[in-house]
Amino acid sequence: MSSLLHAEILEQPGAVRRLLDAQAEHVAEIARRIAAKDVRFVVIAGRGTSDNAARYGQYLFGARNGWTVALATPSLFTLYRRPPRMPGALVIGISQSGQSPDVASVVAEARAQGSPTVAITNDARSPLANAAEYVVDLNAGDERSVAATKTYTAELTALAMLSLALSGDAQRTGDLETIPELLRTALGSEPAARAAAEKMKAHDRCVVLGRGFEYATAFEIALKIQELSYVQAEPYSSADFRHGPIAMIAPGFPIVLVAVGRAVRDEIAELRATLRERSASLVVLGDDEAMRDPSDSWIPVPAGAPDWLTPLVSVVPGQLLAYHLAIARGTDPDQPRSLRKVTRTR
Amino acid sequence: MSSLLHAEILEQPGAVRRLLDAQAEHVAEIARRIAAKDVRFVVIAGRGTSDNAARYGQYLFGARNGWTVALATPSLFTLYRRPPRMPGALVIGISQSGQSPDVASVVAEARAQGSPTVAITNDARSPLANAAEYVVDLNAGDERSVAATKTYTAELTALAMLSLALSGDAQRTGDLETIPELLRTALGSEPAARAAAEKMKAHDRCVVLGRGFEYATAFEIALKIQELSYVQAEPYSSADFRHGPIAMIAPGFPIVLVAVGRAVRDEIAELRATLRERSASLVVLGDDEAMRDPSDSWIPVPAGAPDWLTPLVSVVPGQLLAYHLAIARGTDPDQPRSLRKVTRTR
Repeated sequence: MSSLLHAEILEQPGAVRRLLDAQAEHVAEIARRIAAKDVRFVVIAGRGTSDNAARYGQYLFGARNGWTVALATPSLFTLYRRPPRMPGALVIGISQSGQSPDVASVVAEARAQGSPTVAITNDARSPLANAAEYVVDLNAGDERSVAATKTYTAELTALAMLSLALSGDAQRTGDLETIPELLRTALGSEPAARAAAEKMKAHDRCVVLGRGFEYATAFEIALKIQELSYVQAEPYSSADFRHGPIAMIAPGFPIVLVAVGRAVRDEIAELRATLRERSASLVVLGDDEAMRDPSDSWIPVPAGAPDWLTPLVSVVPGQLLAYHLAIARGTDPDQPRSLRKVTRTR
Repeated sequence: MSSLLHAEILEQPGAVRRLLDAQAEHVAEIARRIAAKDVRFVVIAGRGTSDNAARYGQYLFGARNGWTVALATPSLFTLYRRPPRMPGALVIGISQSGQSPDVASVVAEARAQGSPTVAITNDARSPLANAAEYVVDLNAGDERSVAATKTYTAELTALAMLSLALSGDAQRTGDLETIPELLRTALGSEPAARAAAEKMKAHDRCVVLGRGFEYATAFEIALKIQELSYVQAEPYSSADFRHGPIAMIAPGFPIVLVAVGRAVRDEIAELRATLRERSASLVVLGDDEAMRDPSDSWIPVPAGAPDWLTPLVSVVPGQLLAYHLAIARGTDPDQPRSLRKVTRTR
């Protein structure tokens, strides 16, 4: 248990608390300046874990701010040198290290075009931070393990703070204040996550399903499983999954189902029934004991956050699942093969 | 060889030819009307194969029309009932059947908001067609096999026609006219696709990689492999793959690499070198014999299309690979388990 990764998973309640305290005023000031512009839509650039944070941003800025969000296509800026025009766009670059040239290129181009730009990064002196007009420093402290955990929850928190400040809905600030405590509760899911990992460990493949706000969570849990345990974990929205990939499911196929949030509950319950008919082996991350069934593995997710904040909490049991899957399969969670902490892609 | 799917793969040159002839004037008229509006960005909604066509649209409208493209998040329109505002958006819904309520919901909401809307569908009397202001009828004829092939190339063609008409760059029409003949040439890759399927058939998993315009091709080939052969095929951009999932790659891991298009050639060549160091088992779909190497399986893709049209051609050898993988693994390509032709998701 002397793993760096495990220690960083445990740091998350404190890291989010620190970010809320350190950056609330600064984010409010950024929001005031952006609100003076005519924002019509949002563009977000990120890779890997930060791209999953961007996926959360799609639902967050859509549901809470009424903006359509496009995930950037960096190759148009770099390899093809044909960046789109971005009049009316708020452009956000997300990167723990701030080092990847493709993400910085999107932000630099948008700034040159006159669009408001925000960097969300753990290094306020990085190329990405330098490229952007505004910087939100994650203040997460050094992340020493290769796989990102505390910087992911910090990135989601920064996006939620920015969305909240831009919405002008100050009475929701209290919702954000509950997150550190919910994160602490979520860490209590570790025994259940360890048990589910035992059930999954013999399989080389799985699927991770979520919908709506929890679409991002499904992607991030799948990425952690791949990086840490080398199990091929493929994420889908429950709707996309029905349009083709469900054909793969044979009896015993392991499926991680993120069953969090009121709006998607019926949808997820129907999908679970379909998957049961196909005798899939289910691990359910759920926030409602009424969804619990003895034939599944159940990993509890603390209830209490509003829909737009559940992804800040629900990823934690998934991180613990991925960690224990690595331990159960004998891989080193602190040093995944083929990866370095900073990845530079163009 | 009496497969419906195989017959429909072979129909593609004729289906694209028919679409170009039948809809060119109608698409030009739609473009004239849309051009009168103040379009700032594009939103595209689709599921499954049609979502992969939307991915092509991201690069197409970005590189050729200078617009940022957002892929829609249908659950905000349906489950959450919090659709974003879309002023300045051109909104496109893509669906072979036109039956999926989530896709129609996005288009109906956009139209109610006053945005120009286009349905691209193989059924001009479908709910999606009824929801949209303008309809491009794919004219592909009945698609009887469950997995989409000819309607995918038709959807890409319809998007290319629309992009071209909106760009006002009439001199590029000739590029589009070459596609049916290139598709005919692409069908000649079948023996190479069959040989590559033999090499892959013992594996239950693989990864499919592409970048830029060919990102959509990687997704569509992966979907065909999953639907037809039940092999877990996971698509990535070559850049995203380096930010985590590459950790999965152990010696012998099968990887399908789409090496098509000048702009991404160096990037793909570097990735191939990295994958060789990890002793991955490579199947390369390539349009440049200089990239061919005897240690890989090679499936030729005809050269000659400009970058923005290569995905209309390069998917065909991938469809043939997926078909032969199904045959080699003894699954029925015409009736994948758990799937029906029309999938309705909300």
